[in-house]
Amino acid sequence: MQFKPLNPDFAARVRASFNRQSAMGLIGAELTVVEPGRVTIELPVRDDLGQQHGFVHGGVVGMIADSAGGYSAFTLMPADASVLTVEYKVNMLAPALGERLIARGEVVKPGRTLSIVRADVYALAAGRQTLIAAMQQTLMVMHGMSDEPRV
Amino acid sequence: MQFKPLNPDFAARVRASFNRQSAMGLIGAELTVVEPGRVTIELPVRDDLGQQHGFVHGGVVGMIADSAGGYSAFTLMPADASVLTVEYKVNMLAPALGERLIARGEVVKPGRTLSIVRADVYALAAGRQTLIAAMQQTLMVMHGMSDEPRV
Amino acid sequence: MQFKPLNPDFAARVRASFNRQSAMGLIGAELTVVEPGRVTIELPVRDDLGQQHGFVHGGVVGMIADSAGGYSAFTLMPADASVLTVEYKVNMLAPALGERLIARGEVVKPGRTLSIVRADVYALAAGRQTLIAAMQQTLMVMHGMSDEPRV
Amino acid sequence: MQFKPLNPDFAARVRASFNRQSAMGLIGAELTVVEPGRVTIELPVRDDLGQQHGFVHGGVVGMIADSAGGYSAFTLMPADASVLTVEYKVNMLAPALGERLIARGEVVKPGRTLSIVRADVYALAAGRQTLIAAMQQTLMVMHGMSDEPRV
Repeated sequence: MQFKPLNPDFAARVRASFNRQSAMGLIGAELTVVEPGRVTIELPVRDDLGQQHGFVHGGVVGMIADSAGGYSAFTLMPADASVLTVEYKVNMLAPALGERLIARGEVVKPGRTLSIVRADVYALAAGRQTLIAAMQQTLMVMHGMSDEPRV
Repeated sequence: MQFKPLNPDFAARVRASFNRQSAMGLIGAELTVVEPGRVTIELPVRDDLGQQHGFVHGGVVGMIADSAGGYSAFTLMPADASVLTVEYKVNMLAPALGERLIARGEVVKPGRTLSIVRADVYALAAGRQTLIAAMQQTLMVMHGMSDEPRV
Repeated sequence: MQFKPLNPDFAARVRASFNRQSAMGLIGAELTVVEPGRVTIELPVRDDLGQQHGFVHGGVVGMIADSAGGYSAFTLMPADASVLTVEYKVNMLAPALGERLIARGEVVKPGRTLSIVRADVYALAAGRQTLIAAMQQTLMVMHGMSDEPRV
Repeated sequence: MQFKPLNPDFAARVRASFNRQSAMGLIGAELTVVEPGRVTIELPVRDDLGQQHGFVHGGVVGMIADSAGGYSAFTLMPADASVLTVEYKVNMLAPALGERLIARGEVVKPGRTLSIVRADVYALAAGRQTLIAAMQQTLMVMHGMSDEPRV
């Protein structure tokens, strides 16, 4: 689908917000693509992101899916609004293995109050991408709420 | 509900598995309660776990809910089985603020192949607990699969 | 949890709204308990509600869970608001078999804009209740929107 | 994605199974497209499918999404297996209004034990389709279980 952003500075705004997410820094996530309604977050796989079998932890997969989805919705929000996650549901489809995880969010329906997004997460191993997770998410547009730190 | 574990050593097994989850170590999560069908994971709040407003990142909240839920199911699995998350859905109910987050998982229905679990996450601030997230999750019993590292 | 309704006439309002849901009439659903934050809907099992194996269709189970959950939230909304389902997620736990299905909704967190609810569905067979489905749901408070027909 | 069915008679099998779902007959749902990994179910809008505002009930929307998704997965299952819904999550995006609802399921990942599917539901009004619901679902492959009635 083709989306028209309400805020011409949406990309700079998303990048500034992502840089304030210290949890993304902790796991080493990188914001790559920022387009109207679409955001990609990539995560170099590290040993300290694992679950008990040595795969990347499902919760970490959920984290980058949540962020990619939330920022996809944020690209279409007005300049005076902030974004909050209402809920997300993520299916784990295959073990998170490889050199890098790539979470691609895409808005299904932008709304004045709520936006619905889907994100797919791929694992890149030896040049080949495998779909490892599928997410569906509800975001809330917080009108008149700054995206700056509140605490 | 009252659950009867199939594996008398369930608690030691859960603790050993949790200790192998390097991602839990990265965020500083602690395994506290381990009972048949119920597991609690606590997370001291740190600055490097934040999202853009300074609250704990929703994905981090999802991580500890996912782990608390998964280990709740694991307590009831046979000694030769491992656990994998099929999917989870989490609602964010209030900002994750305070000194400590507490994720309490509880099995809704244990099964031979699939187990269903709910988890609630509370934020502890100034001695008071506030419900901040509610999760529902599906886990798979992996019969004959070791819980040891595979990679 | 103990909830305090904003609208003293909540029960009459829920009953009137339920009676306008022709789909509930089509499947033969009955509204039984209406309390602050809690609503029960029961469904006598009929042959024309089945899926291919002869159990009650999972979508029908979802329907009564959705309605029980939605009306649980509606009991706590102000008199000038209506309720809309944002999303729901339902796990099927056991075959829907027996004489009657009983869907019990309960508010997890009422909110000014969004309310979060859980519902459990039981099948009653030979005097014994079995948990057959577990739902988690997000509802929206539509301030200033009548609950009367709009079409 | 391109899928290769394991059972060459998948279409006849899906149609026979759908015809045994009495609940689909009750609401008047019609099975239209049956392709490998993709199934469409259509629902002529009727007055007796409504919720309180006169739109089609969200639970009815969920029913056809659940069936379209489940049969999408079923097209890819072996001839001796049956399909059961493990769980589904559906977002309501717009009021279900118009002459006809169209639920299109598509497999995201077929599996030996579990299959993951997404479905989108559209409302057709005056020749124009509007996306009204988005679903994500987990199905179980029941090996060695007949699709015939069990009760």
